[in-house]
Formats: sequence, structure tokens, C-alpha cells
Amino acid sequence: MQPIRLGLVGYGKIAQDQHVPAINADPGFRLVAVATQGKPCAGVENFHSLSELLEHGPEVDAIAFCTPPQGRFALVQQALAAGKHVLVEKPPCATLGEAMALVNQARQQDVSALFAWHSRYAPGIEAARDWLASRTLQSVRIDWKEDVCKWHPGQTWIWQPGGLGVFDPGINALSIVTRLLAQPLFVDSAELRVPDNCQSPIAASIKMSDASRLDVQAEFDFDHGHDELWSIEIRCAEGVLRLDNGGALLSIDGVRQVVSEEGEYTAVYRHFRQLIGDRASDVDLQPLRLVADSFFVGSRVAVEPFYDPAR
Amino acid sequence: MQPIRLGLVGYGKIAQDQHVPAINADPGFRLVAVATQGKPCAGVENFHSLSELLEHGPEVDAIAFCTPPQGRFALVQQALAAGKHVLVEKPPCATLGEAMALVNQARQQDVSALFAWHSRYAPGIEAARDWLASRTLQSVRIDWKEDVCKWHPGQTWIWQPGGLGVFDPGINALSIVTRLLAQPLFVDSAELRVPDNCQSPIAASIKMSDASRLDVQAEFDFDHGHDELWSIEIRCAEGVLRLDNGGALLSIDGVRQVVSEEGEYTAVYRHFRQLIGDRASDVDLQPLRLVADSFFVGSRVAVEPFYDPAR
Repeated sequence: MQPIRLGLVGYGKIAQDQHVPAINADPGFRLVAVATQGKPCAGVENFHSLSELLEHGPEVDAIAFCTPPQGRFALVQQALAAGKHVLVEKPPCATLGEAMALVNQARQQDVSALFAWHSRYAPGIEAARDWLASRTLQSVRIDWKEDVCKWHPGQTWIWQPGGLGVFDPGINALSIVTRLLAQPLFVDSAELRVPDNCQSPIAASIKMSDASRLDVQAEFDFDHGHDELWSIEIRCAEGVLRLDNGGALLSIDGVRQVVSEEGEYTAVYRHFRQLIGDRASDVDLQPLRLVADSFFVGSRVAVEPFYDPAR
Repeated sequence: MQPIRLGLVGYGKIAQDQHVPAINADPGFRLVAVATQGKPCAGVENFHSLSELLEHGPEVDAIAFCTPPQGRFALVQQALAAGKHVLVEKPPCATLGEAMALVNQARQQDVSALFAWHSRYAPGIEAARDWLASRTLQSVRIDWKEDVCKWHPGQTWIWQPGGLGVFDPGINALSIVTRLLAQPLFVDSAELRVPDNCQSPIAASIKMSDASRLDVQAEFDFDHGHDELWSIEIRCAEGVLRLDNGGALLSIDGVRQVVSEEGEYTAVYRHFRQLIGDRASDVDLQPLRLVADSFFVGSRVAVEPFYDPAR
């Protein structure tokens, strides 16, 4: 079978660090063109825009989108209208409305779309799903606490309207939990702690539940310089499952478990390849919907101003 | 044909003023039971809860929900699980996640569900749709400006987390506009003006567009004592359509048009009856989704505190 000819839009940090290495390691794909306004990608044809790529570039079957979510909607629409399969980095769009429209458009065009919630492919996730499948869940506790100055130096957009603030990492936790649980989650209440000089929360507490009234609590903190942690603990009648390091490590009742050795983005592209083969899509809105609902019903508490030392 | 046996949950102001008169005027329905914790409804059996109604009440085919959106989700789920058709007052739920889950559950149960965006049944709306169908739209301007102290005296919940603030009336405008336009709308940006002592906006400006880049602007104001107005003006290549008084009045190029004489809730129940007859549903999420996306991407500006004179 011929490899899938792939174009990539937005050759920034995540594309350079994760997407391109994963694509190049997968014989099922061949990266043939990149659209970017920054530094070009070596070894392929580079274009200044998606339009130019589609018009003057080599033929592509699929396009991966690594641009920021603001402004991505029109680009993905354009690719779908051209009949291309699409892989869309998280979060898929700036609003839920845009994401829902892409789901419909992909269905109408009969192409494959993947909303790539990359944390769902962390090494421990599938083993955790397997273990949970036959257990009786009692409660879920998420702690996602990191230092924004280390991970997002100088990225002011994260604090502006439409920026996710602490939900930028937090949505990764939500994407994992919604993958682990069989039923959808609902936001019951949320507290968003917003620095006086910002629009987006630097910390948040979210209370969620499912139709069976499962108690799910999340604590997000973006100003957590010491002992960063990205953990999800699920208490079951039969024992306690814990994911650490964003899903890389899995333990059951404190005993470390054997997990997958495949990298997140390697697994993302394998999944995308299978979707294209099956003419299927995987466009789960749930993580974005939980964030939007947290902003919708959340109470806001003003906290002290945040100054990025990188600026 | 036998009339549809109807139960009603939440016998508050909207039920007393609108629902029950409309139900009683429609020979296709017979109101047989009410669940309420307040004053009972004359002429029918009254119960303290939906559970009691379902367990001990007369057989019902359908249930209308007039309780506040907070807490409504579990009740509607219960009715759907019991195989009842449901009519749900606006907004259908407290969050988008809950509303989406109800849509799925109604589909699975194969019953009829109606999210009753009552303003869509205002007298001028269908005539406006007819006129617009063959026109080329250029821009849409919404002005929804009223005095909260007059319409919601003492209703503190409107200002609390999850309360819609000025979007409580504003969602009516959004429900009309999304009924008039052929394509879905997306929130591009929003400014939410939130009183210092409240959680929800007292005024808002929203910029929206559709896939054809139609320019749609909304101005919501909830602290507008003088010259209240609820108007939607749609500029077309062929002329200007204007709805006033929340859709009750329609004019084209300044000339008043003949409109329907049917009341909003009479039309709501006629529609519900037809849906039940057709085994169909009408569960449009779009107005709620536009509000959630406005909260999601909107910038917040603190404005002076709001004190309700009724408290």
C-alpha cells in the first residue's frame, strides 16, 4: 500500500518536537509539504499558507494542523472542503461551535478526522482502561499542577480572552479521564481563580459527575513551581488506580504496572492511519465541552496579578 | 384521537401565566397532573415531586418542565427513562453537557423531545423567515435592552455562577436569530460587563459570524430602564427586515407586515403535539451553545456593583 501523503500546517514547537519525528518514523505516512510562516521544514516543500500548499503544492491525502486553535477553524474547513483527511491538535478549535461544525463537515465530506487529544495516548492509559473495565468506580481525583513560567514562557495568548489559562494543561487531564470513564461527565460547579491582570484562570477546582453520580474532582494549578504533578487517582471497590506523570506511569494499589512503550505521537499517527484505512473519524468534543461548561457555570475569584518573568 | 395526557413539573410563574392556559386551550392535550412544591394547580392532581407523580399519579404520555434549569437535568432524565415525551422550557439545562446528554437519551428512548425556545414562536418570526428565504443577507444587528429590576425583581440566582445574567433575555434573541438564519453561527469575540458584586454579566457585546462571514452583532443590556427594546434588524441586498418587541412586530423597509395572531405558547404546544404525532424531536442546542461560547471566549470587564432595589 502507498503511504499516505501528508501536509502539515504550522511548523512551530509542537510540530518540530513531536509531529514531524512521529510522522517520519511511521512508514504509513510520507510528509510531502509544510505550510508555515516561520522557519521552513527541511526535506519537504514549504509554502506560506494552506491555500498555496493546496493550489501549488504536491498532491496530499491528509493534513495535520499544528497552528494555534484561534484561527484554525477556517483552515480546517478549507482542508475538509478540499476532501482531505485532517488531524487537528488539541484543543481542536477556539469555540465549541467551531468544533461541532467541523464534526458535521467531516461527516458530510466523508473523510477521516481526528481530534488529537494526545494525552490519551500516554503509555499508561490503555492498561488503565483495561483494569478499570471490570471495576466498580467510587471516586476520581485529578491533580494537574505545574509551573506556567517553565512550560509557557512569554506566551501571553494563554491569558487573553479565549486563552485557556490553566485549562491549557488541564484539558489534557480531562481528555484522559473522559477516555477512562465509560459515561460522559458533567460539570456541576467550578471555581476559577483569575489573576487581577488576566482574563483566564491560573487555578481552578472543578466538581464533575456522571449519570451514576460518580464523584469526580479536579484541581488545576498553573503557578506551582515546586513538586509539579500530573496525576489521576481512581478509587474503586477493588483497589486504587493511579496515573502519574500525565499518564506515563500506572500503579494499582501502589504497585507499578507494565505499560506501553509507544510514544504519544507515535500512537496518535498510528490511530490516524487506521482511521483513514477504515474511513472513520474520532472527533470527541467532550474535553473541550467540559472546559466550556466550566467557564459557563464557574464562579470567578480574583487573585493576585500574574507577571511572566520571561517578559 | 385521544388527547395527549400531560404532566407538568414546576408550577411557578411561567407555568401559571403561559403553559397551563396554552395547554387548556389545546384540545390535543389534557393536563392530568402537576408536580410542584408551591401552590397547587386547580382542577388536576398535584404531587410533591416528579417521582411521586410517576409512581402514584394518573398515567401520562408527556411531561412539560417549567422548573429552573439548575436541577432540571436529573428530572428530564427520569422522565425520558420512563418513556415519556418531554417539553423543556428554555434554557434546557444548566450546562451544554447536560443538554447534549438529553438529546442522546431522547434519541435512544425513541420519544419526542422539544427544547421550547418560546421566542421562536413570536408572531413575526415565520413571516420573517419566509421573506428572508430568497434574500441576500448582509448584516444582522440585535439590540436586546431591558430593565432587569422590572422583569426579575429579587431573582438573585440570575447573578450567581451558572446564572445567565443579561443572557437570560439575550438567549431569546439568539434563539430567534438562529431560527431565521440558514447556517449556524459562531462566536468570534464577546465583551461581558460584569458588576463588581456579581458573577454574571449585566451587559454584553457579541460578535458572531457564519460560514459565509455574515456579520452578526448583538448588544445586550440588562440595566436599561428607559425605552426598552428587543429588536433584530437584518440588512439584505433587497431591503431591511426589522423585528421589534421580541419578534411580535415585523416590518420590511419600515412598512409594518401582517403577522401570525397565534400566541407564543399556543404555537409551542401545537409544535409539541405535532412532534409527538410524527415521533420526532426538536432539540436545538445552538442558542445555549452560543451563550456558552460567549462565556468561554468573552473578555470580562468589571463594571459598577448592581443592587436590586427589590431586595
